[in-house]
Amino acid sequence: MFIQLDRNSSVPLYRQIAIQLQLLIVEGALAPGFLLPPERRLAQTLGVNRTTVLNAYRDLKSEGFVSARVGQGTSVLDPERSQSPVMHPSEQSTGSLPSGRSFAGVKRLPKRIDLEDGSQWRHLFSREADRTHDTLTRDILALAGRSELISFAAGIPIPDLEPPPELEKLIRDLLMQEGHPIYNHTPVEGLPALRESIAAHVTDRSIQATASDIFVLSGSQQGLDLLSRLFLDPGDYVLVEEPTYFCARQLFEGRGATVIGIPCEEDGMRTEMLEAWLNRVTPKFIYVMPTFQNPTGRTMSLAKRRMLLDAAMRHGIPIIEDDAYSGLRYEGTDIPPLKALDARQSVLYLGSFSKVLFMGLRIGWLQAPRAILRQLAIHRQLSDIHAASPSQWILDACLKSGLLNRHKENVIAESRIRRDLMLGALARHMSDIPGVHWNTPEGGLYIWLSLPAALSARRVAEAASRLGVAFVPGHVFSIDGSSSHSLRLNFTYPPKTRIETGIRMLAEAVRESSSGNAETPLFTYPEDLLPIV
Amino acid sequence: MFIQLDRNSSVPLYRQIAIQLQLLIVEGALAPGFLLPPERRLAQTLGVNRTTVLNAYRDLKSEGFVSARVGQGTSVLDPERSQSPVMHPSEQSTGSLPSGRSFAGVKRLPKRIDLEDGSQWRHLFSREADRTHDTLTRDILALAGRSELISFAAGIPIPDLEPPPELEKLIRDLLMQEGHPIYNHTPVEGLPALRESIAAHVTDRSIQATASDIFVLSGSQQGLDLLSRLFLDPGDYVLVEEPTYFCARQLFEGRGATVIGIPCEEDGMRTEMLEAWLNRVTPKFIYVMPTFQNPTGRTMSLAKRRMLLDAAMRHGIPIIEDDAYSGLRYEGTDIPPLKALDARQSVLYLGSFSKVLFMGLRIGWLQAPRAILRQLAIHRQLSDIHAASPSQWILDACLKSGLLNRHKENVIAESRIRRDLMLGALARHMSDIPGVHWNTPEGGLYIWLSLPAALSARRVAEAASRLGVAFVPGHVFSIDGSSSHSLRLNFTYPPKTRIETGIRMLAEAVRESSSGNAETPLFTYPEDLLPIV
Repeated sequence: MFIQLDRNSSVPLYRQIAIQLQLLIVEGALAPGFLLPPERRLAQTLGVNRTTVLNAYRDLKSEGFVSARVGQGTSVLDPERSQSPVMHPSEQSTGSLPSGRSFAGVKRLPKRIDLEDGSQWRHLFSREADRTHDTLTRDILALAGRSELISFAAGIPIPDLEPPPELEKLIRDLLMQEGHPIYNHTPVEGLPALRESIAAHVTDRSIQATASDIFVLSGSQQGLDLLSRLFLDPGDYVLVEEPTYFCARQLFEGRGATVIGIPCEEDGMRTEMLEAWLNRVTPKFIYVMPTFQNPTGRTMSLAKRRMLLDAAMRHGIPIIEDDAYSGLRYEGTDIPPLKALDARQSVLYLGSFSKVLFMGLRIGWLQAPRAILRQLAIHRQLSDIHAASPSQWILDACLKSGLLNRHKENVIAESRIRRDLMLGALARHMSDIPGVHWNTPEGGLYIWLSLPAALSARRVAEAASRLGVAFVPGHVFSIDGSSSHSLRLNFTYPPKTRIETGIRMLAEAVRESSSGNAETPLFTYPEDLLPIV
Repeated sequence: MFIQLDRNSSVPLYRQIAIQLQLLIVEGALAPGFLLPPERRLAQTLGVNRTTVLNAYRDLKSEGFVSARVGQGTSVLDPERSQSPVMHPSEQSTGSLPSGRSFAGVKRLPKRIDLEDGSQWRHLFSREADRTHDTLTRDILALAGRSELISFAAGIPIPDLEPPPELEKLIRDLLMQEGHPIYNHTPVEGLPALRESIAAHVTDRSIQATASDIFVLSGSQQGLDLLSRLFLDPGDYVLVEEPTYFCARQLFEGRGATVIGIPCEEDGMRTEMLEAWLNRVTPKFIYVMPTFQNPTGRTMSLAKRRMLLDAAMRHGIPIIEDDAYSGLRYEGTDIPPLKALDARQSVLYLGSFSKVLFMGLRIGWLQAPRAILRQLAIHRQLSDIHAASPSQWILDACLKSGLLNRHKENVIAESRIRRDLMLGALARHMSDIPGVHWNTPEGGLYIWLSLPAALSARRVAEAASRLGVAFVPGHVFSIDGSSSHSLRLNFTYPPKTRIETGIRMLAEAVRESSSGNAETPLFTYPEDLLPIV
């Protein structure tokens, strides 16, 4: 009988001992009644701590492989006659196993899952899956696809803009390259040439970087996902802007974190509220989108950026800066991203090409301290290994040839036209509705519109949907409910010619909902605004 | 004072109440000394269970926002003078918060993280990140890149095979398509046309599918990652083959699962061991690679496939079938995948194009019951949203035009030549070494070579590396240590002309290590084979 320990393994030593003893018992090498060596002796033989063996024996006992009685030692139980019931770990009523393996948030399983009944699979889901059930993004994409509907609900840049004509030639050149690298593996961190191009590209945003600071992602959303896994355990805190990007919120809550929304003004987080929270809790990170924020289109002022950096540094809290939209500025002056002001490596910077070039390429990047990129690479190689090579090569060529910047000018010009069309329509159709106001974003994809306090955006969404226009109501982005009387309007996705009509319908929906003449709701959103005290 | 509950939210109601009360306290709306309403009254006002309010108040108390004394009610504490220390959740020594939010596996944090010191970031990492620290894949890729080394360590198909000449034309046609869909978003589940093509493609593997059964992945590795998140909580069990694919093992262990390796013979799992384990534990799933397994190159017999399906069905346990290599058969007859034999929807089937077409495209797929695909889509849209569009369109064109199958014939012919070169070299150089034997895989990328029981593959790896040849030693794939006297030899990555020399060096390394004349180890692997009892 041998036990072989692997000290490089990620499996703790006590589990290695337990698993190998289990194997020997199940195999029959250790017969029922066989006395395991005393803990002290086994510990000595294996050169491990006595506690290690103790924990291994405890696991064996709790899993029904052995029985242990004082003075009688630890002996192997007959698997067939074991007193211990066969248990699914999540079934255990105590909610914990010895040795720190705990099963908080227990869910009771049926005795046996009937896999032929699709609905029963849910019993097998993890707690992360249980917490992740919002289908909003898909619903919005589905909604956006209903052609009879005018959709201001999408988060998509102008869909029908022609790619620049030189792009085709550029890809044909790539196809002719010696060795056909466009089809081959790239390193986990990204194609080296592309990492260099991105490092050069970020100088446009006043950021200093070398290729080794840049980690190529399959879209910046993947960066949020990987960073959530890197940092968040159940019970951790995350600070975000109120309102915030809902996919970020879903990820953080999916990991079991408590998300706290810091109230915001037009120019960013309320300083005193941020400080008050940082004095109360120690979040794992602060997540912000300082430029043309999703959903509000707001931009954080330079003063508030410095304040945020200063507060985060004083408290030793990293910031995740999501800079997906800053490339799309229609007017006003650039404000440097937090990363450009960050002398002390506290900002993890997420960039994206999806809003400026083409959404389907699925390439974004993270700029972060090396210690983070190293660990991220480990997780990434277990996830999608690396971003698709054709996308990486195409993007690199677009950056190197200057095509990206030329195309961006078109995107900006066309998007500005659409923003102005919507602002004009809002002024014509909605400026006479009391309590309704909206902002004028200097860039990005969204206008943020506020309703009178007595009117919830959900209610308007129902009326609007009946009339034939869609948007995303504010509660979706809201942590504390304070944004549920606002709504997000996207102006890039709908055809130019339908913006005016859509806004007219929206005005009608607001008037109808305010007058209390709304018909029976299409959806069954609960209206839970309840006064207390 | 308002509290607004969102019953559609993934945040539990008690946390919504707690968070909103916290906000009101931090904002100063509820001044120090303010008495919160009695639990029963607040519960009534909000229309929730009294326990919900009780849990919210408990959180507020444990987080230092309020104090509660019997007979005096619950009153707001002064944030500045709060007795409760500011805590990072993971710092708590009790290891638990009320209401089931538990922090088992506590790690103590320094009082304040110095973000300028890169090494301190690790303190912020999640337990999942703590458990995920193996860099083996990257090390192997790095090793494979050392040009002076002959590498049998890679997991890569023939790297220098020319793409078929018609591919370029095919991509040029895609570039000319009306509306340039190659750059646009696709649905989360994949390009509909590609889902159809894959559904047609799997009939080659005797599997029935419609497009809606197929979920397009950014490589089949992503499927393993998503399924791990979907199913696994800490303490769950997973059954795998011993030895198994190490990236799968790392993912499962990263989620905190206990991985159990079922001993295998040349034709698959030992039936009685599988049954014995299924009588003992209820795993969340069984993970297998039945055809040309990584690392052993073995193929599970039809009889054992039926046995496995039967056992899984009787116990109500799903099977994840990883079928990455079955396209590469060099001889013998196809055996249907588990999915083809699965009349009862218990198999989640992962397919890949990376071994047959081009690794850089990063496209694989999952075929699974709809209930699984629906939940997977939710997780996927929070991760990379969808697979890169150019890759999806290129692959779809390769499938529709028949190019994939024509190219596959080349890959198979070339790979068979390399396998036979390696088998020949092994026979010439190693058949006279006592205790050394290897198998003859009918397909795939790997030969599995066993050493005498006294010789560990790690030790041989050190000697081999000094001589200039690399492979992956068996302990990497081994759950219980029983495969550490075997090693994995890849024959597709190294140049044809170097296979003979590499195997000669390997033979030399084995002889050198057996004779005990090995020099000082290059690495410091512990040799932990210890006899007990």
